[in-house]
Amino acid sequence: MSNLELGRSTGWLSREELDFAREKLPILYVDAVPVRVDDRGAVTTVGVLLRLGEDGSVCRELVSGRVLHHERVRDALLRHIEKDLGPMALPRVPASPQPFTVAEYFPMPGITAFTDDRQHAVSLAYVVPVTGTCDPRQDALELTWMTPEEAATDAVSAEMEGGRGGLLRMALASVGALR
Amino acid sequence: MSNLELGRSTGWLSREELDFAREKLPILYVDAVPVRVDDRGAVTTVGVLLRLGEDGSVCRELVSGRVLHHERVRDALLRHIEKDLGPMALPRVPASPQPFTVAEYFPMPGITAFTDDRQHAVSLAYVVPVTGTCDPRQDALELTWMTPEEAATDAVSAEMEGGRGGLLRMALASVGALR
Amino acid sequence: MSNLELGRSTGWLSREELDFAREKLPILYVDAVPVRVDDRGAVTTVGVLLRLGEDGSVCRELVSGRVLHHERVRDALLRHIEKDLGPMALPRVPASPQPFTVAEYFPMPGITAFTDDRQHAVSLAYVVPVTGTCDPRQDALELTWMTPEEAATDAVSAEMEGGRGGLLRMALASVGALR
Amino acid sequence: MSNLELGRSTGWLSREELDFAREKLPILYVDAVPVRVDDRGAVTTVGVLLRLGEDGSVCRELVSGRVLHHERVRDALLRHIEKDLGPMALPRVPASPQPFTVAEYFPMPGITAFTDDRQHAVSLAYVVPVTGTCDPRQDALELTWMTPEEAATDAVSAEMEGGRGGLLRMALASVGALR
Repeated sequence: MSNLELGRSTGWLSREELDFAREKLPILYVDAVPVRVDDRGAVTTVGVLLRLGEDGSVCRELVSGRVLHHERVRDALLRHIEKDLGPMALPRVPASPQPFTVAEYFPMPGITAFTDDRQHAVSLAYVVPVTGTCDPRQDALELTWMTPEEAATDAVSAEMEGGRGGLLRMALASVGALR
Repeated sequence: MSNLELGRSTGWLSREELDFAREKLPILYVDAVPVRVDDRGAVTTVGVLLRLGEDGSVCRELVSGRVLHHERVRDALLRHIEKDLGPMALPRVPASPQPFTVAEYFPMPGITAFTDDRQHAVSLAYVVPVTGTCDPRQDALELTWMTPEEAATDAVSAEMEGGRGGLLRMALASVGALR
Repeated sequence: MSNLELGRSTGWLSREELDFAREKLPILYVDAVPVRVDDRGAVTTVGVLLRLGEDGSVCRELVSGRVLHHERVRDALLRHIEKDLGPMALPRVPASPQPFTVAEYFPMPGITAFTDDRQHAVSLAYVVPVTGTCDPRQDALELTWMTPEEAATDAVSAEMEGGRGGLLRMALASVGALR
Repeated sequence: MSNLELGRSTGWLSREELDFAREKLPILYVDAVPVRVDDRGAVTTVGVLLRLGEDGSVCRELVSGRVLHHERVRDALLRHIEKDLGPMALPRVPASPQPFTVAEYFPMPGITAFTDDRQHAVSLAYVVPVTGTCDPRQDALELTWMTPEEAATDAVSAEMEGGRGGLLRMALASVGALR
């Protein structure tokens, strides 16, 4: 979740309240893997964010963020896609609410393949075709479109934190684009 | 599969050859449930064909047909949607090749929920959003757009043959639209 | 999850803290539909709890409950199945973390098909074969094994609250047992 | 399926008939990835066959084979697992008929990620936990149990033909075991 979103939700769930919740409950997230599809629906390229980390490092990320109180999962997906890819991305959220996987992030490694220093987060992960123009905003530096082959490489995985490289590969697998 | 399609594939797999294959092998099919979605991807209405049966009766059907030799499943879906809904339906075949279910049609009842007098068919079933204008062709009389609630009623199921009413309900379930 | 951790987590979240969280965040749940399968894996019967409601009414329920802080989804499923069906149910939690659907419960009707007076809950729903002896405990009065046909009837749905009858039908659909 | 029916079906389709069908129709297959799971259902190891190829080479394979006329997909899975892993493997075929993917094998490369010199085959792919003793038979030399990490390596993929290394990775992804 970006700093801006944290700031925005402050008026509604203060930083202290969120910190409290993070010590008490699993926090519900969504992860979205934006893709381009051809006219038969097959995935041609995958969008990965190149983002400036909190410590100044550069890392690759998926579109991701919290599901808010009284917010539908679909709306959370659309909100985070707009936040990260801009208002003209024209995403097509799948008709089915079934995620391709459920990623469980724990603060400590070894429980699952996913870690998150800040919290125990449970994320519903979706592949979302986008058909418009993506214009990364906020602290995201760039959106890189890669072939599925490139996105699945160890080099890309090494630039993703908390096991998200594996999540990206699972996304590719779910659309039959992993080799 | 409509009579016309049977006729059309005759040039390529004769009626005798198809009859032979039907006695020897399971025949691969696709079933497609066309839907309209709102701008969040949620299903609002479902398209069901009202078709003249071979015996003159009127019955409701899904978009359905055979996968041809050397044809991709995606292409079979697009071909049958165009055949039944016309060239301006603008379908969005899902990125994932995973069907919401596999429907096994047997000539004799009681093995599965699905029957087909002509053959042992195994069908990959998909929900396919369509965004354009549907113009049913061939022997289809009409495309009826129904709410998910209406499509799931016993009255609609009673007008569908071979257990396809159950398949329609499973399609609704897969998109979270069954109550 | 060990009993120790279970104790620790429940100790961590008092009734007041849970009430607070319910006003601020979606709460993560699991729903489990226990089934009996034959030796080919096909579902033969479905287990539905007959439970005494808070107001003294009798209603039917699925196995359901919250995912605790630092608890895996698998462990939450096993814990709630043991809580509701006893320690000898011998559940087989599916290998895949992908739920058959995500049920979003809102306090107000009309947003989704699911409601929950107490909270905004987002539930990962799974079909779980059980192979042992089920011995309902706590406030559950009885576990009823039904055929899929019976479980899908309007009569059964009418005895389930918050749209859970629809969730049960979606579970049946996901295993190809809805007609 | 009984041995009787198996005998009858294989008798029905001679080598010539199968060759004929392969030139006319897509042939329906199943692929099964046998796994061991822990008592929470999480995959711990994956079984891969080490098999002598037709040209004398050694290669790794999945459990795989044709769906016969009038055979259910579940029965085809059980038959091929028994054929390759022996009668004491004690497989647990999933309750859901939904495959984790549909693998389309074409004789020519470049259409999908999968190739098969002999035919156009469309395969329904499942992950199947086995709980008994596996005793590979026929031309299979050995069943190797690997960790998910090992099974996903390029070294293992390089020993699998026709893109099946990618299918194995997709299987791992579907159970959340790909990194």
